Amino acid sequence: MGKNIVEKILEAHLVSGKIKEGELIGVRVDQVYTQDATGTMAWLEFEAIGIDRVRVPLAVSYVDHNMLQSNFMNADDHLFLRTAAAKFGAYFSRPGNGICHQVHLERFAAPGRIALGTDSHTPTGGGMGMIAIGVGGLEAASVMAGMPFEFTMPKVVRINLSGKLRRPYVTAMDVILTLLKMLSVKGGVGKIFEYGGEGVKDLSVTERATITNMGAELGATTSIFPSDENTLKFLKAQGRQHQWIELQADEDAEYSEIIELNLSEIEPMIAQPHSPDNVVAVREIKGMKVHQVCIGSCTNSSYKMMKTVASILNGRTVHEDVTLFVNPGSKQVYQMLAREGDIEKMISAGARILESACGPCIGMGGAPGSGQISVRSYNRNFKGRSGTKDAFVYLASPVVCALTAIKGEIVDPFDTDIPVNEITEPDSFLINDNTLIPPKKDKDVKIIKGPNIKEVPVKEPLEENIEAEVLLKLSDNITTDDILPAGTQVLPYRSNIPEISKFTFKNIDETFYERAVNAKTKGGGIIVGGENYGQGSSREHAAIAPMYLGIKAVVAKSFARIHRANLINFGILPLIFVNPEDYEKVNQGDILRLSDLVEGVKGSQRYLVFNKLKNTYFEVYSNLNEKERELILQGGLLPYVRKKVIQ
Amino acid sequence: MGKNIVEKILEAHLVSGKIKEGELIGVRVDQVYTQDATGTMAWLEFEAIGIDRVRVPLAVSYVDHNMLQSNFMNADDHLFLRTAAAKFGAYFSRPGNGICHQVHLERFAAPGRIALGTDSHTPTGGGMGMIAIGVGGLEAASVMAGMPFEFTMPKVVRINLSGKLRRPYVTAMDVILTLLKMLSVKGGVGKIFEYGGEGVKDLSVTERATITNMGAELGATTSIFPSDENTLKFLKAQGRQHQWIELQADEDAEYSEIIELNLSEIEPMIAQPHSPDNVVAVREIKGMKVHQVCIGSCTNSSYKMMKTVASILNGRTVHEDVTLFVNPGSKQVYQMLAREGDIEKMISAGARILESACGPCIGMGGAPGSGQISVRSYNRNFKGRSGTKDAFVYLASPVVCALTAIKGEIVDPFDTDIPVNEITEPDSFLINDNTLIPPKKDKDVKIIKGPNIKEVPVKEPLEENIEAEVLLKLSDNITTDDILPAGTQVLPYRSNIPEISKFTFKNIDETFYERAVNAKTKGGGIIVGGENYGQGSSREHAAIAPMYLGIKAVVAKSFARIHRANLINFGILPLIFVNPEDYEKVNQGDILRLSDLVEGVKGSQRYLVFNKLKNTYFEVYSNLNEKERELILQGGLLPYVRKKVIQ
Repeated sequence: MGKNIVEKILEAHLVSGKIKEGELIGVRVDQVYTQDATGTMAWLEFEAIGIDRVRVPLAVSYVDHNMLQSNFMNADDHLFLRTAAAKFGAYFSRPGNGICHQVHLERFAAPGRIALGTDSHTPTGGGMGMIAIGVGGLEAASVMAGMPFEFTMPKVVRINLSGKLRRPYVTAMDVILTLLKMLSVKGGVGKIFEYGGEGVKDLSVTERATITNMGAELGATTSIFPSDENTLKFLKAQGRQHQWIELQADEDAEYSEIIELNLSEIEPMIAQPHSPDNVVAVREIKGMKVHQVCIGSCTNSSYKMMKTVASILNGRTVHEDVTLFVNPGSKQVYQMLAREGDIEKMISAGARILESACGPCIGMGGAPGSGQISVRSYNRNFKGRSGTKDAFVYLASPVVCALTAIKGEIVDPFDTDIPVNEITEPDSFLINDNTLIPPKKDKDVKIIKGPNIKEVPVKEPLEENIEAEVLLKLSDNITTDDILPAGTQVLPYRSNIPEISKFTFKNIDETFYERAVNAKTKGGGIIVGGENYGQGSSREHAAIAPMYLGIKAVVAKSFARIHRANLINFGILPLIFVNPEDYEKVNQGDILRLSDLVEGVKGSQRYLVFNKLKNTYFEVYSNLNEKERELILQGGLLPYVRKKVIQ
Repeated sequence: MGKNIVEKILEAHLVSGKIKEGELIGVRVDQVYTQDATGTMAWLEFEAIGIDRVRVPLAVSYVDHNMLQSNFMNADDHLFLRTAAAKFGAYFSRPGNGICHQVHLERFAAPGRIALGTDSHTPTGGGMGMIAIGVGGLEAASVMAGMPFEFTMPKVVRINLSGKLRRPYVTAMDVILTLLKMLSVKGGVGKIFEYGGEGVKDLSVTERATITNMGAELGATTSIFPSDENTLKFLKAQGRQHQWIELQADEDAEYSEIIELNLSEIEPMIAQPHSPDNVVAVREIKGMKVHQVCIGSCTNSSYKMMKTVASILNGRTVHEDVTLFVNPGSKQVYQMLAREGDIEKMISAGARILESACGPCIGMGGAPGSGQISVRSYNRNFKGRSGTKDAFVYLASPVVCALTAIKGEIVDPFDTDIPVNEITEPDSFLINDNTLIPPKKDKDVKIIKGPNIKEVPVKEPLEENIEAEVLLKLSDNITTDDILPAGTQVLPYRSNIPEISKFTFKNIDETFYERAVNAKTKGGGIIVGGENYGQGSSREHAAIAPMYLGIKAVVAKSFARIHRANLINFGILPLIFVNPEDYEKVNQGDILRLSDLVEGVKGSQRYLVFNKLKNTYFEVYSNLNEKERELILQGGLLPYVRKKVIQ
């Protein structure tokens, strides 16, 4: 039986399991990269594992998210990341060198490889014919420590491309917007999209990368293109032709589903507020007045697209009612545009050129005014993401964006007096890696941590007995936002567990933190929850902070999947009432005693709980799988990995 | 008797008074400009005056301070300023067009004119041979409404220049740093510095502007250079030669003081933390490691300086331990640098290019890390101004800055292996005013105010009788910070008096706001203070907010000068105890009654106060001059100007 591209790559990296939909598999990882917003915690976690050097062939630490530097924290983070990269053997991409996905595509991505990145748009690398997947910080740290990457094998869906884009009016952005319209933001959950067919030849690597980048919005695990002549051309232009291999699906490869898409039929598309799949044809809403346009980001910052934008702006002026922001995705592209006069055209037209960074795409500056309409060549238009709660954000190609900026209203590229010129891909890119610092050979680098960067706490192995106070009794459907809120007040402390832990349950009970700190000295605390405890955002801090505060166990009627995994990863026992009505028998302030835990975890996973205050008993159980038992016994994933990798 | 330049210009604009040191004079103003941080209030105040169009020959509304746009507020402010400019007949300089002082110098400043700007670095225009003075928002608004500008005639001090700068190693920045070392930050208080002598010829207009710009740090009212051949050359290069007039001091002009300065003897200088006058020679601290370098701002963004920087960076890389920010002062300079390949050189070296705006100079981004050392070609290095409380900021020329960025340590330009090339001033600048929107002819523009922009409250004329509650009794030396705090929580509400008033006295008494709102419905409130009430920062909001909350009078033992003027400007009676010991007879919660106020203000200015609660009497007085009586009677400067200008 023939193989598809995904199977070929996974097979070459397989460490454990069988490559079969729904099976847990483990693979060797070639490349791991982090960005600064998630990277500080990932590198703190790596440090906590306790080894000297990364154990993957390539690790890169990028800085692209938090670059406004409104106070000391951003610069402190940059310095920490730089010194940690030097110490642990990672490349460090200096602030200004560009957005991780774009730079990684240009300088490191290679066909046939597996890459992990601590950012949801890591699939950008799929445009190069590699499997590139976004993961959490602790996952990245454990892989960098040499552990295999374990995940459940997704479905592989083939997207069969035919025809050719009607360039320059229709772009790769319109392809992915069309797919979002067809499949919705849930259409990719549990799937990898593998592109194939005659139409693939029509797309350059950067165009493919736009499509795989925004494949994240489909909810897909990742997306991937074949590696072909176009891949070779791009690698050659980057001076990296030696990294090329051809990679095609076998003729008789199997897929769980096949979707047909004719590129010739695609027209300029636009996503309306407030979801990337709320897509219509641009012509349907042309003429709508806009207040802001943003061009760039990791989705649409290719040399070709940026030059197209410059040629549209050339000799014109951004409409009086519009603010135009441009954030080039990489220093390479930015410098080439500057060299070739394109930056001057943009400045002349009145564009506001921002640093090569994520910028307005993640609400780091460039927020629209109240109720304003912003059209962006970015990847997400969730309500409030722009920094302005009542703004209306639309997503469209850089061509549509540039025309719209000039006209002050949404423009259909097929229906305007401004000529759009087709730009050809360059035969060679400007290669200047001077702000990409290679790993240091000297391991005696000192890691510098500003006052807001604290070490990650690591839990002790599971205790034999727990006697702890019920610090909080909660109702059903408690979210991770309830456990640890987000927001501008809390986010700056993501590298500072002692500080962020002060916000634990703050919106539910202002006294929680103090009571927990108090209880910690007397044996710790227990949380009692109802059904679906820990639903919502996947943030790992909702487990780290309670662990740091001495929470030993959460007893609930049921758990949300990801938060349960996070509790286990940080060594907190997730226990379930055998009789849900026993929930009524526990109150805040009760002292619960659980005995012979190690034996219980290894054995029956049923535990008798003694309520010391009420002098009553009830039963709970844990349904840990083999690996989870190990994690709980050792105090979580960090001590587990530490033990595995330190001989 | 001969005249100096200051006298010549003032004489040509005199409306009232005699040009004699210490006398109050009134002059006609030719140009008024605002920046966005102070401009929103200035234009709200102009709106409150109630006339249709500005009554000065030229008004310009710039946007350069608040451009990070972390939420809706900045963009809302920009839109308000743009629509207000259109409605009231001002130019609007779009965000990205540059820093007000630099753009104004390039496109509007003209010798022999008088300009006011709502920013302390307005004296930049002195480099053009004009009198340019920084003022508050209400002052600017009243002048834009056609009122003369009234001020006390300062001393005129001659700075006699001889010799020539040892270019390219020594720059205009080193001249003003040398003067700061000689004279200190208090050396210019109550003075105008008029430059003259043979050495003037050695300095171009932009070099002169660097000196007059940072003359603000001497505490001077303003600084001014003659208008000569160099002035003509600059105006010609800006396509504005028709605005040139020659302007020289008469041979026998008199000055209150003459200071000699030989340019040939000046060496590269640097201001150390935390004051611009803490100046030493660069050679004295060369070799000191630095973490950050910032180049640009309104002080040092000339084409020549920026090109010098680019030539130093060319082909090199910013030191690994250093972050280099560049914020070009104007779109004109930025575009020229982009056209001529200089921006590419900067990008290539790893510089982080920020928008053409104030940026890190005012702590709007670019904050250094904890305890880091930053060397900047900016004008101020006060503790904390960078956004990082424990950072150490040094001020030096762009040449020193660029060399330092490459070497990672402070470099003496005379003592380095990096060649520094002399750049010649251009014969013509790139003129492209497409982001400088001229005043609209159509007066029916709608002013758009976001939810955070509220109208300025205007007080009613003085009431005949006041019966009001003592809302707060305070001790001596209450500061305007006590009255209305600053800080990131409060500052965003500067255009929103209802909201900012909630912070009134908040740090002294959390209940004040609610009690004031309550008292307002029953006749208003009175504040009782001790000696030196209202010392500290000059912020006018410390008077507007209490006025808005219904405070009718402040009774104190004595007042700080500027706050007393602000109280009067907003119609609050500043009353002084005739017998200071009567201070003891009043308590919070007392109801005070003052009768026949209008007659009292017009006549004796002594008032009998009846303490209704205690059934006692005491006496207070006001020492208002003729104009101040008028202001108080009419409810403050806004109603006063309104009455004067609306026929």
